[in-house]
Amino acid sequence: MSHLTPDSMSAQGLEAFLHEKIPLTRAMGLRVAESNAQRLVLEAPLDRNVNHLGTAFGGSLHTLPTLACYSALWTLLHEAGIDGHVVVKHSEANYRAPVTGTLRAVCARPPAAACAGFLNDLRRHRKARMILSVTVEGANGKPAVEFSGSFVALV
Amino acid sequence: MSHLTPDSMSAQGLEAFLHEKIPLTRAMGLRVAESNAQRLVLEAPLDRNVNHLGTAFGGSLHTLPTLACYSALWTLLHEAGIDGHVVVKHSEANYRAPVTGTLRAVCARPPAAACAGFLNDLRRHRKARMILSVTVEGANGKPAVEFSGSFVALV
Repeated sequence: MSHLTPDSMSAQGLEAFLHEKIPLTRAMGLRVAESNAQRLVLEAPLDRNVNHLGTAFGGSLHTLPTLACYSALWTLLHEAGIDGHVVVKHSEANYRAPVTGTLRAVCARPPAAACAGFLNDLRRHRKARMILSVTVEGANGKPAVEFSGSFVALV
Repeated sequence: MSHLTPDSMSAQGLEAFLHEKIPLTRAMGLRVAESNAQRLVLEAPLDRNVNHLGTAFGGSLHTLPTLACYSALWTLLHEAGIDGHVVVKHSEANYRAPVTGTLRAVCARPPAAACAGFLNDLRRHRKARMILSVTVEGANGKPAVEFSGSFVALV
């Protein structure tokens, strides 16, 4: 069993991996709502991630998308049969509106050509970089946080 | 008693406020190492903030500086006798090296002129913006993470 990526990328398998390996995800009450080749969706309840103003804490609003990106890249590696590290190199977010209910981070998979290039780089150079975007939805599904991160995979 | 900022900006008062109002800080084991007019230093143990690779989790490495910035701005407001909200509008970080021990985020106060401008804006327009930088120290105190955030205070 690898310790670098989940054995299973089912929602259940991914959630178990995150809860076991990254204890803060348990404290956040993180739940994997969707895990598939199209997108990764993570959720967390407001009460575990609340701030002093009664809205979602900025730290949680950055952490949830970071985890969605790791998970999206693990899915890609899993499909390609590659066991590798994934690390974050840069991340940034614009916080446009407070989140007043469940935190929900949606990471859509980049276009097929970008994914193929990433996997090719990884096979050839044992290292590859991918930029991923995530939206945290607020009221009525409108974007409340826009996150972008640059991640590196290493084998 | 205000619910917007700590009653006391002593290390102990600030830590109690964070633990009470932002439950994730308890899960992180957050400790206020220094709280004064020169700088804000927050720490958290690795075991509570570890990732699947045995190093500090990227989410924690972004959350700790975010909290250091809130705390630095609360200190400024406190000194000026102003009770106001502080919210994060934008944040970004470069993760240069893994952190393999205690997480330690150091937020130095900006130059006096910048602080005076911020407080003047807040008094005149009931709103002011400040950009703050934080370093998370890695082995031997070298910068492991460089964080920058844009924060808005409202009264």
